[in-house]
Amino acid sequence: MAKSFTIDRDRSTQRIENDIETLAGPDFTETDEAIRRYAYTDVYENTLQYFTRELEKIGFSVWRDPVGTLIASNVPKGAPAFGIGSHCDSNRNGGKYDGTLGVVTALEVCRLAQESGQHIPLRLISFLEEEGSGFGQMLLGSRIMLQRVTEEELKTTILAPDGTSFWDSAKAAGYEPERWQESISEIDGLTGWIEVHIEQGRVLQDTGNRIGVVHALPGYVHGDFHFTGRADHAGATPMDFRVDAVIPAAETILEVERLANEIGKTTVGTTGELETQPCLINVVPGSVRVSLDTRSVTGGHVELRDRIVPYAKERAEVRGVGFEWVERQSLPITPMNDRLVEALRAEAEATGEPFLVMPSGAAHDTMCVADKVPTAMVFVPCVDGLSHTPLEDSDTADAALAAEIVLGAIMALDA
Amino acid sequence: MAKSFTIDRDRSTQRIENDIETLAGPDFTETDEAIRRYAYTDVYENTLQYFTRELEKIGFSVWRDPVGTLIASNVPKGAPAFGIGSHCDSNRNGGKYDGTLGVVTALEVCRLAQESGQHIPLRLISFLEEEGSGFGQMLLGSRIMLQRVTEEELKTTILAPDGTSFWDSAKAAGYEPERWQESISEIDGLTGWIEVHIEQGRVLQDTGNRIGVVHALPGYVHGDFHFTGRADHAGATPMDFRVDAVIPAAETILEVERLANEIGKTTVGTTGELETQPCLINVVPGSVRVSLDTRSVTGGHVELRDRIVPYAKERAEVRGVGFEWVERQSLPITPMNDRLVEALRAEAEATGEPFLVMPSGAAHDTMCVADKVPTAMVFVPCVDGLSHTPLEDSDTADAALAAEIVLGAIMALDA
Repeated sequence: MAKSFTIDRDRSTQRIENDIETLAGPDFTETDEAIRRYAYTDVYENTLQYFTRELEKIGFSVWRDPVGTLIASNVPKGAPAFGIGSHCDSNRNGGKYDGTLGVVTALEVCRLAQESGQHIPLRLISFLEEEGSGFGQMLLGSRIMLQRVTEEELKTTILAPDGTSFWDSAKAAGYEPERWQESISEIDGLTGWIEVHIEQGRVLQDTGNRIGVVHALPGYVHGDFHFTGRADHAGATPMDFRVDAVIPAAETILEVERLANEIGKTTVGTTGELETQPCLINVVPGSVRVSLDTRSVTGGHVELRDRIVPYAKERAEVRGVGFEWVERQSLPITPMNDRLVEALRAEAEATGEPFLVMPSGAAHDTMCVADKVPTAMVFVPCVDGLSHTPLEDSDTADAALAAEIVLGAIMALDA
Repeated sequence: MAKSFTIDRDRSTQRIENDIETLAGPDFTETDEAIRRYAYTDVYENTLQYFTRELEKIGFSVWRDPVGTLIASNVPKGAPAFGIGSHCDSNRNGGKYDGTLGVVTALEVCRLAQESGQHIPLRLISFLEEEGSGFGQMLLGSRIMLQRVTEEELKTTILAPDGTSFWDSAKAAGYEPERWQESISEIDGLTGWIEVHIEQGRVLQDTGNRIGVVHALPGYVHGDFHFTGRADHAGATPMDFRVDAVIPAAETILEVERLANEIGKTTVGTTGELETQPCLINVVPGSVRVSLDTRSVTGGHVELRDRIVPYAKERAEVRGVGFEWVERQSLPITPMNDRLVEALRAEAEATGEPFLVMPSGAAHDTMCVADKVPTAMVFVPCVDGLSHTPLEDSDTADAALAAEIVLGAIMALDA
């Protein structure tokens, strides 16, 4: 297939590099040890203003939704346009690339579109508070836009660490949270949506690919296994007098891995948090909590949850250990739009660069956008899969390649 | 066998109960929510003074060693005598019985001996700082007496939580730590030693026995397994890209239990502390630490350590997980003296009350005394095996029975 669009990749790499490094400067982070940037801080405002200036330079109009998500377009608000973007807030001790690289790459797509001299209607969106660093809630800006929250939550349960509500914080920052429901109008007329993001995994790096075309965002189940035994003296309690909570916990940890491998089909299962009480070398564990994070883009995560919970319960009961499964949250799978995925795949293939059609493992704002708009995502590799750390690293040349593929796909879809 | 000695158990129960309840009063604990009593506090001093008054009442001389261990005798210092006692410091959030019941029961033995009108040379010792609440070091008073510490340690590494050395703390309390080595003279002339203590396990309760005659104190190994994997994103890292530290950790936890059961012979193995990093639901465990406490009175604990460490290493290596075993401390088995054990067993049997000859699972000051003196111990049941908690509970009638058995054994041994 012929490429829809070819760019000067070196120049795009330079511009993306310049944006990324500028936004890693002291005006754009609250600490020089990491990128720390979240809603309603001065450094976050500075970041939105940087994007505003850059976008206005190329003739885009820029505005914000009622709570602070930034929108820019080269056509009037509400007119048909293709959506691109990500988020530019960071984890509290984050790096330069997570989110920001997606907005910067979208900005580069806008620049390239304007430079092409063709009429390519675009809408850039930089969502507020994807990471949850400001108010402890992930995907907050996109959830507000897609009406996945309630006014009650915004007023009472979504709080800054100091206890101030999101509602009051938004007002104090000069926004109009009482108009939050109008935010959904910002997707009016969107003909599609593509988000570029660092992979946050090591698959692209370890398989030698420069681009990931994402065909689905995962469904997941988050929850905790609670095992309650009896905290006895480790010396004075013979083995057959024990009700040791850690034994069924360890069995469950191993079974989570075994099941994820057996079920396959993109299923992952992780027991990342362990907590034991009283946690003393000379006391038999009285209680153990093990967290479960299981995901897939095929439904394997639901199968895993449905098989591991009875297993854990049975292993606990065999020993007289109390058991409870407490589910924290679950989200359904978000398939990407076939037509968009195919357009991206074809453009990626046409570049001759190595790429992979792959699932996402992480959640993204695109999950919310997908409620109403055909969506896809493009991943670029990040070194060793690291994210949410100042060690985060990514090659801006890969982001330039992503910009070329995204713009090409948008043009091909429009043709 | 005829009993060597019969007492009015109800009267002894009353006296022991009165001592215990008095020492649980506000003058003898730093908090009313638990017994909190450790070296060089006013409440500890009050406790030593209580014992001093009670012992002087029955004609004993009372003095202290150079760091504050209390000694009392009805014969001159150094003259042949049988030793009895325990400790009267507590865990920071301790109960009324651990240690204190042993000193109170020894006091009751002294009372009974004096009341008998017979010449029974006794030496009561209440060791300083058995629990380690004051300076983080267990068995400190008995280790000082038996010269199991160095002057360097007392001056520089054995510290109160505020950083003050044991040495300076002892001086500030009016003691003469520079004379600590003279403490060993307090065991001169001891013909034997018996310590009464709550069991700190549930074996006596669950088997319906009122007395445990201890035939050995356990050897133990304390250490940590350190597993070092890679902290990857739980969603974005497929199962076959992981180096998950928790998997060999869980395998090791299960193998510790399996080995303890297989080795048998009083062997116990406990994985009481779990620590995982970064301990986030959505991150594959990057590192996991699992503690090991293994004990036996037969050498099974050494076998367990020698078998589990290579197992853990192999399970780690299979997955590319880094592994280190760091041993904290090990102590050899302390067999009790056969003649003393038999004397106690015979006296216990003669009472007609249910008793068990059993190993100890916990460490006690008697371990140190056994370096130089024939020793034994007697356990009394404690409710549900609970110790080191304000919930600790024990029946003072069982302590009275222990007093009768101990005094009977001492008299039989002397006969």
